[in-house]
Amino acid sequence: MSILEGLTSTALCYQGGALKILDQTLLPHEERWLTCQTVDELCEIICSLRVRGAPLIGVSVGLMLGHLAACGADLKTLQNASARLRATRPTAVNLMNSLDRLAPYLSEPEKLIQEAKAIFLEDQQLCENIAKHGVSLFRPKSRIMTVCNTGGLATAGIGTAFGVIRRAHEEGLDVHVTVCETRPLLQGARLTAWECLKFGIPHTLITDNMAAYWMQQGRVDAVMVGADRIAANGDFANKVGTYMLAVLARAHGIPFYVAAPFTTLDPKCPSALHIEIEKRSREEVAGQWVPKEVNIENPAFDVTPGVLVTKYILDRGVFTEVSQCGQ
Amino acid sequence: MSILEGLTSTALCYQGGALKILDQTLLPHEERWLTCQTVDELCEIICSLRVRGAPLIGVSVGLMLGHLAACGADLKTLQNASARLRATRPTAVNLMNSLDRLAPYLSEPEKLIQEAKAIFLEDQQLCENIAKHGVSLFRPKSRIMTVCNTGGLATAGIGTAFGVIRRAHEEGLDVHVTVCETRPLLQGARLTAWECLKFGIPHTLITDNMAAYWMQQGRVDAVMVGADRIAANGDFANKVGTYMLAVLARAHGIPFYVAAPFTTLDPKCPSALHIEIEKRSREEVAGQWVPKEVNIENPAFDVTPGVLVTKYILDRGVFTEVSQCGQ
Repeated sequence: MSILEGLTSTALCYQGGALKILDQTLLPHEERWLTCQTVDELCEIICSLRVRGAPLIGVSVGLMLGHLAACGADLKTLQNASARLRATRPTAVNLMNSLDRLAPYLSEPEKLIQEAKAIFLEDQQLCENIAKHGVSLFRPKSRIMTVCNTGGLATAGIGTAFGVIRRAHEEGLDVHVTVCETRPLLQGARLTAWECLKFGIPHTLITDNMAAYWMQQGRVDAVMVGADRIAANGDFANKVGTYMLAVLARAHGIPFYVAAPFTTLDPKCPSALHIEIEKRSREEVAGQWVPKEVNIENPAFDVTPGVLVTKYILDRGVFTEVSQCGQ
Repeated sequence: MSILEGLTSTALCYQGGALKILDQTLLPHEERWLTCQTVDELCEIICSLRVRGAPLIGVSVGLMLGHLAACGADLKTLQNASARLRATRPTAVNLMNSLDRLAPYLSEPEKLIQEAKAIFLEDQQLCENIAKHGVSLFRPKSRIMTVCNTGGLATAGIGTAFGVIRRAHEEGLDVHVTVCETRPLLQGARLTAWECLKFGIPHTLITDNMAAYWMQQGRVDAVMVGADRIAANGDFANKVGTYMLAVLARAHGIPFYVAAPFTTLDPKCPSALHIEIEKRSREEVAGQWVPKEVNIENPAFDVTPGVLVTKYILDRGVFTEVSQCGQ
């Protein structure tokens, strides 16, 4: 039995010698766990967003390489698996960071499995540290706006931005969270709202285009978002709509916080200009209501300049500039 | 046969002694015309947004009162009809302006019918005038962003904001329009995209939360929107998400234009504070994917302060301040 056996988080676990993944495309209506034995399967699961969230993607590819090693895969198979997983999604750097970290151990199965397990457990601890630092920024009765899902469904732990909100709720700070639905795939409406219900966190779900109106009405004390890749100069990529919130927050004098683990930092990436933005299919936007002749674009992410960030809430602490964090 | 017979626009006509309305909730997939004989029917049609667009709502209630008068309705019936129609939707003032204009003629059937016809024909001319003035602001190859639907489906003529865009296209100015889908009811994705296809106007459909990213990328030369009520100080109500575009346009140094006929002006309303914002049902936001336990709010409109408006494109001309237009 591999030492991976028994690792468990909200949307990912290793059980019975197999990686199991909660299919997030079916939430909130159905909680179906997929058994994932092969690289092919995990590539499909990542590309279709059945598993998603920058940190959780990084954890999932670690478990897959560990799983293959535990099954006796040779170096070539593991190298090939690593290369294929790396190509699944371009924007979130946790995927690449996780694979880079495992690369030295591809010919040492025991160490590879240990490192995969370490990445999983470390991600849980990173969430705890982010939550601890983030909560220090909250006054009681804070009304926080967030976008996409950055909770237990996006990490192996309690989450990044949403983890901070959840911890503040657990500590009795009487928070309220306004959840932007996050078109086109509705990770806010489907996933973050699901977590709000699960943990009894007071919330209001709105469409993304209501965010400015909420701020105008004085209903937002802070915006808190996650990140998919933070460049060396503090620019960061995150779910499309994040840049909108950053500009609106600045225009309304509202603090704008980014919460992320160090595994989301990309020190080799100098600035926003160097971050590739994933373009996804027109069907995600078109749904059932737009004829196929209509021209549609669908960038899944946007980039927010660091100058719009009030504070970075990282596992090492709270920083005004990313360069101060010492990673 | 009433003098209303034969009045025809994209989504409204008077034919065979009856008001006929294109059911806009079924677009773009189905073009179904509803026959509307009673006030009850029109109230349902307005409340459910089968007919929509501030100017077109004003035109439709005029035709209904004219229709009732042509059918021999007495003063009391017409007064009752007017009161019930007035209560259907609170934000767009064209509804109230149209009913106020018809009120003096409720006991004079011939004049009432004439005035109802005049409102219809005048709305077409107002659109033409707006388009003529608006086009003067366009340079060739302008890339315009818009929201909701302000075209032939929202007026008896070619439209307000979209009418300007359509006219610029017809005059060979090589425009491109970025259409924000306009959650929750997708008037951009369903209706404006439908008009773009119909008139061969180059377009790109995006989700509302991509608008800021488009501006950041330098893909927007101007934002052009309609209005549901313009207060005396220039503040105006329009589809929720409009205020977001105004703030984002200002932050990116992009001109922000509001196009509307004088029937959208409300000189008795001093400012935004006095505009009632319609709150609609949670189901419009929830769709099929959000459990009923999730708390949702759904304001259908927001208010943009006049200070964010670069120019008002009205039927009388282009103005920097609404107070200059002499209405």
